[in-house]
Amino acid sequence: MNPPPVNHGHSTLWQTIVAEAQQHQQQEPLLAAFYAKNILNHHSLPAALSAHLAAQLGSPALPPPLLETLFQETMAADTTLIEHACADIHAYRTRDPACHALFMPLLYFKGFQALQSYRLAHWLWQQGDHAMARFLQHRVSLVWDIDIHPAARLGHGIMIDHATAVVIGETVVIGHNVSLLHAVTLMGAEDRSGHLTVADYVLIGAGAKLCGHFQVGEGAKIAAGSLVLQDVQAHTTVAGVPAKMVGRPRTERPALDMRQQVD
Amino acid sequence: MNPPPVNHGHSTLWQTIVAEAQQHQQQEPLLAAFYAKNILNHHSLPAALSAHLAAQLGSPALPPPLLETLFQETMAADTTLIEHACADIHAYRTRDPACHALFMPLLYFKGFQALQSYRLAHWLWQQGDHAMARFLQHRVSLVWDIDIHPAARLGHGIMIDHATAVVIGETVVIGHNVSLLHAVTLMGAEDRSGHLTVADYVLIGAGAKLCGHFQVGEGAKIAAGSLVLQDVQAHTTVAGVPAKMVGRPRTERPALDMRQQVD
Amino acid sequence: MNPPPVNHGHSTLWQTIVAEAQQHQQQEPLLAAFYAKNILNHHSLPAALSAHLAAQLGSPALPPPLLETLFQETMAADTTLIEHACADIHAYRTRDPACHALFMPLLYFKGFQALQSYRLAHWLWQQGDHAMARFLQHRVSLVWDIDIHPAARLGHGIMIDHATAVVIGETVVIGHNVSLLHAVTLMGAEDRSGHLTVADYVLIGAGAKLCGHFQVGEGAKIAAGSLVLQDVQAHTTVAGVPAKMVGRPRTERPALDMRQQVD
Amino acid sequence: MNPPPVNHGHSTLWQTIVAEAQQHQQQEPLLAAFYAKNILNHHSLPAALSAHLAAQLGSPALPPPLLETLFQETMAADTTLIEHACADIHAYRTRDPACHALFMPLLYFKGFQALQSYRLAHWLWQQGDHAMARFLQHRVSLVWDIDIHPAARLGHGIMIDHATAVVIGETVVIGHNVSLLHAVTLMGAEDRSGHLTVADYVLIGAGAKLCGHFQVGEGAKIAAGSLVLQDVQAHTTVAGVPAKMVGRPRTERPALDMRQQVD
Amino acid sequence: MNPPPVNHGHSTLWQTIVAEAQQHQQQEPLLAAFYAKNILNHHSLPAALSAHLAAQLGSPALPPPLLETLFQETMAADTTLIEHACADIHAYRTRDPACHALFMPLLYFKGFQALQSYRLAHWLWQQGDHAMARFLQHRVSLVWDIDIHPAARLGHGIMIDHATAVVIGETVVIGHNVSLLHAVTLMGAEDRSGHLTVADYVLIGAGAKLCGHFQVGEGAKIAAGSLVLQDVQAHTTVAGVPAKMVGRPRTERPALDMRQQVD
Amino acid sequence: MNPPPVNHGHSTLWQTIVAEAQQHQQQEPLLAAFYAKNILNHHSLPAALSAHLAAQLGSPALPPPLLETLFQETMAADTTLIEHACADIHAYRTRDPACHALFMPLLYFKGFQALQSYRLAHWLWQQGDHAMARFLQHRVSLVWDIDIHPAARLGHGIMIDHATAVVIGETVVIGHNVSLLHAVTLMGAEDRSGHLTVADYVLIGAGAKLCGHFQVGEGAKIAAGSLVLQDVQAHTTVAGVPAKMVGRPRTERPALDMRQQVD
Repeated sequence: MNPPPVNHGHSTLWQTIVAEAQQHQQQEPLLAAFYAKNILNHHSLPAALSAHLAAQLGSPALPPPLLETLFQETMAADTTLIEHACADIHAYRTRDPACHALFMPLLYFKGFQALQSYRLAHWLWQQGDHAMARFLQHRVSLVWDIDIHPAARLGHGIMIDHATAVVIGETVVIGHNVSLLHAVTLMGAEDRSGHLTVADYVLIGAGAKLCGHFQVGEGAKIAAGSLVLQDVQAHTTVAGVPAKMVGRPRTERPALDMRQQVD
Repeated sequence: MNPPPVNHGHSTLWQTIVAEAQQHQQQEPLLAAFYAKNILNHHSLPAALSAHLAAQLGSPALPPPLLETLFQETMAADTTLIEHACADIHAYRTRDPACHALFMPLLYFKGFQALQSYRLAHWLWQQGDHAMARFLQHRVSLVWDIDIHPAARLGHGIMIDHATAVVIGETVVIGHNVSLLHAVTLMGAEDRSGHLTVADYVLIGAGAKLCGHFQVGEGAKIAAGSLVLQDVQAHTTVAGVPAKMVGRPRTERPALDMRQQVD
Repeated sequence: MNPPPVNHGHSTLWQTIVAEAQQHQQQEPLLAAFYAKNILNHHSLPAALSAHLAAQLGSPALPPPLLETLFQETMAADTTLIEHACADIHAYRTRDPACHALFMPLLYFKGFQALQSYRLAHWLWQQGDHAMARFLQHRVSLVWDIDIHPAARLGHGIMIDHATAVVIGETVVIGHNVSLLHAVTLMGAEDRSGHLTVADYVLIGAGAKLCGHFQVGEGAKIAAGSLVLQDVQAHTTVAGVPAKMVGRPRTERPALDMRQQVD
Repeated sequence: MNPPPVNHGHSTLWQTIVAEAQQHQQQEPLLAAFYAKNILNHHSLPAALSAHLAAQLGSPALPPPLLETLFQETMAADTTLIEHACADIHAYRTRDPACHALFMPLLYFKGFQALQSYRLAHWLWQQGDHAMARFLQHRVSLVWDIDIHPAARLGHGIMIDHATAVVIGETVVIGHNVSLLHAVTLMGAEDRSGHLTVADYVLIGAGAKLCGHFQVGEGAKIAAGSLVLQDVQAHTTVAGVPAKMVGRPRTERPALDMRQQVD
Repeated sequence: MNPPPVNHGHSTLWQTIVAEAQQHQQQEPLLAAFYAKNILNHHSLPAALSAHLAAQLGSPALPPPLLETLFQETMAADTTLIEHACADIHAYRTRDPACHALFMPLLYFKGFQALQSYRLAHWLWQQGDHAMARFLQHRVSLVWDIDIHPAARLGHGIMIDHATAVVIGETVVIGHNVSLLHAVTLMGAEDRSGHLTVADYVLIGAGAKLCGHFQVGEGAKIAAGSLVLQDVQAHTTVAGVPAKMVGRPRTERPALDMRQQVD
Repeated sequence: MNPPPVNHGHSTLWQTIVAEAQQHQQQEPLLAAFYAKNILNHHSLPAALSAHLAAQLGSPALPPPLLETLFQETMAADTTLIEHACADIHAYRTRDPACHALFMPLLYFKGFQALQSYRLAHWLWQQGDHAMARFLQHRVSLVWDIDIHPAARLGHGIMIDHATAVVIGETVVIGHNVSLLHAVTLMGAEDRSGHLTVADYVLIGAGAKLCGHFQVGEGAKIAAGSLVLQDVQAHTTVAGVPAKMVGRPRTERPALDMRQQVD
């Protein structure tokens, strides 16, 4: 609502993003409007992010300007939301070799956009506004094919690479600095009494399914295509349908090096 | 075409849906138009469902009002379509712990919407209108990323949970009260001589692939991520790539309890 | 830009497509505008393909007419693009039993459309226009849920069946006449030093994941749901998570017969 | 809100409109969706009129479904609104030689549509909802270039022919069965203390301007292009800039015969 | 329908328009898509004109591609339509000092666009397709605020300058090389027995109203704001409400010099 | 381009507008998105005005974000533009009895919006960017039916009431604090050698036409519907077709009292 000039900790990141966008705008004139609409016409990261998400999640029955206001107010009410967004941007920039600039998660990566939308929906869910939180979950699923229940709990520094067809259920708890690939499923159990917990620095490969209430220890690696039904020890690698321990990741933090091999 | 007031067996369900929507509309004013457009401005479930599907499946080249008329006429010509839709709504309501109200499948769940669109396309296919049936298949695949061939045969009481990236081929036959999760593939064989048959009460986990012409017996469970290439006995659980029998479901009807564990 | 009348080698294919569309337009009047917009209002395959892709990949910030011009100019600058498109159309027509007409890939199959969009983006990437190539990759991922890095190298005669949730990374090299199914992942390795190479006539089943830099030999078959982390010998079949050799395809060219069984 | 089946006095008129539309729909297949959307998909005149006006007056910031609900509730709260709409339809049908069917005002004549929108805005204004009434005035002016202040008072059986560029100010009072042509201005005076009153059966020619607070007597005729600044006697014809009495209409009710000549 | 390469007499004009657009496209990059969409992406004047009119006259219930096909077929069936369009373009270019290029009527002048739409509607009306002709009249009135009955008869070389709020009734007959300004009304009489005839080279000033069945002689001038109710002699100037003869135009063909003074 | 926080002289006016909008937003929840989109989501009057005009003048071929950037840069380059906009807002607020709030011109009055668009186009015209200036003139004419040539020269404190069908030609020069009503034409002469000059405080009534190159003196009043072809003395009232002097305005500044009577 009539946002005042801001000067939060995220302003340095924003200035870099603006500089990158200005440079790219000159290189490819056909994309001038794209950079203007999503970055250069805004005066802060929360403003740009609110407008960008609202433009995509709005619909004829809930027009983008109302969502934009809602998102701006939410980010103003809880500044950790934008701090986590910044951590997520850095996660993409440092872990994804195809991410050459800080503006790329904001503009291009649907995993990032779905994640920030989840963060907003989660905050609303915690305030008791389940109706709006569910609506946002629905829109994210429709627009980006990523389905994250607003009651799930996710840490910061999360990267969801490629991201299509990811499902994260209601009883899931994910730590910090975790990396997921596309088509990952984290489902919890049917009785909802308990949690599926994923600790920090875990790497979960493409198409892996984790079903049930158990714990995945810090720095573990789940091989792509695996089905995990029970606890995974910290710093181990599991693979198979169902999965068994097959080795140990080369580093303490496989989420950061993104190595998909089973060592 | 100028629909008369209706009073079918589904009117009780519709009255509940209207009451739920009115209650939610008061709780979250931002969603008032959403409930009005999709539920409260309509006078029956077939009318609301026709308008809602048409609004999403229409395109600049085939405007929603024509599809809406086509869907209304189809539902009037074969009332089992709306009966099956009701059975599907109840399937979501009783099996999905995240489904707290009867209006949720109608408004939020793309698996349900794709399923009803398939039912309409299947009816048109049976009438010989292959062109429109294929067009609808195409639009469903584009809008919801769910690809169901209109010649496939599906029973009632079906739930497709999360639903992204589901593929069901031309020679597939599915019984009643089956539950599928997202990313399930039911492909048939390349020669199209025969069928891939799934009996009642089967549960197929996320990302499972069934390729070929064979039978899955009643009450069987296919573990997530598995690849099934041959018959599955009734009331058994299979897992693996390729899948082998690994146990028996705890209940006769695993589709109803939705338990993903391999017992 | 003011396209002159054309008479390339693809004109025979185009004439067949026009004749098919005229026939179908008469059979289903509701689809008249759909055939007119996408086929009958155009005078050549490059013109129709440019308009059809641009209409779907355009956005409020990059309007379809500019993309249409860009695509027409690109196809005029490198006529192998349309030749490869023709080879891809024939691949769908001969390998997919549900493809009854030559116009169907153009109108209905998102795998085909994403593939042609990749071909255009790849050409731009080679010219050094990385910004536009990345933008197109982003739009393809958003519209069709298919993520192909513009630096990847793909041959001709490619079919991507169903196609949802396919991911092809930056260091991937695919030969000619390869068939992929939906949810296939070809990722390369995290260090980007090397290539993941897939030879001619390979068939990769639904949901298979290939992660790392290695070679898949000519005529190999990857079973659905498998995880491949190392070389696959020519004319062998592999399956499992991780995958092991389990047999040999019945034919030299499994990509052409599309048989999913593990022999 | 979930409209019940209706059976008001306007149902006979509605049945005729439906029959006309069905006949025309068969004659011109290209217009099938047009008739379906605006007439045949609805079950009563208030429902069709609400949807048709809402579709045109809605905007990204106030989506049509909300306006549709508002209009339906307003017409249900005051049934004289739909009675006046019926009288207006009959006025067009009997006075306009180019109006060959009862559905034409509803579908084609922006004077009729602006008039019904004014009737809704006037009712809201009387209830004290000046904000919405002004918004509707604004949208009518933007969409149809007809500017009627919601505080003006208009009778029934009004025809505004062609209708572009009509302006009717806040202090204007118009009786029953009056005919206006396009570009007519009824402005009142700058001090707003008083009224510009037009009695029954008056005919006001194209482009005539009436500025100030005075009375135009029953059955008077204002010649096209005239400027009227003071009282006009009943059953007289005035013309000129400023206007003077120049004759007497041939009939008592010039609004009904629509004769433009100055007799 | 799949238009063949054309080479009509209008191709020289088209080549000039293309050259102009290419030149302007370079001068103002922001307008590149505008020129591409409306001129440079087309291969002939009939194709560009059909697409441009269809894009504006289409609606959700009658999508532009169908109108585009209809317009192309109509122009192919009667080539005088495009000849008259060329004559109209030249009329604007030579008579309107603000018209600096041949592409300007096509892109910018709603009088020209409404006139060509009328020519198409008139042809359909003559073929007996009154339903579509009336629909087009309605759309023209809604989009451009110009209301021309499809039964009216207009010659070639017509210019309607500024054009807002022009009304031309059913019984009106206009000759060749006539110039009208905005807000002109040509209404005919209420009994429709006869015609309002305007001869060649007549100039009708802004806001003039001609009501009734009579003749305006060749080379006459109607002063702006006048009300004409009876015959006007050739080569005379009339003015007033009602109008009287006040002089003679300085030239034989006042439509060509566009002089508004009353001499 | 990434607008910095602003604090110009217009910030007081903007604060009042924001306060008004917040108050109205609470009174009518249905309009919440309307106020948010057009006022409350912006941080300054130039930002809100740029976005609001761009949203309406944009098109598929020139998307709103690019126009928004262009308008912001233009207003930053010449701050008299926003000063004149403020003077115009005050003109509406003080002269139009139906204008109850300072936000109303910005949100509701197309005369105001067209005027500000002209100011932007005029600035571009002066910089030599005739192509964009003509494009804007075209869009204003299409969207609001107001046609102002970008080469015309208009002062500040201008009010164009109701505004439909106003035409202002290339050689027109208008002073400060002038009031026009709808359907006014200021055309200049056909030879473009000279100017049509309107001095300060002139009031021009609805539908008046001024054709030719002459002068209208300070504080003159032109009666509605009149045709003016020659000089009008200061502080006189003229009326008629053609117009003659008929009296003197009651005040020195008839543009301010808006009295339409001929005294």
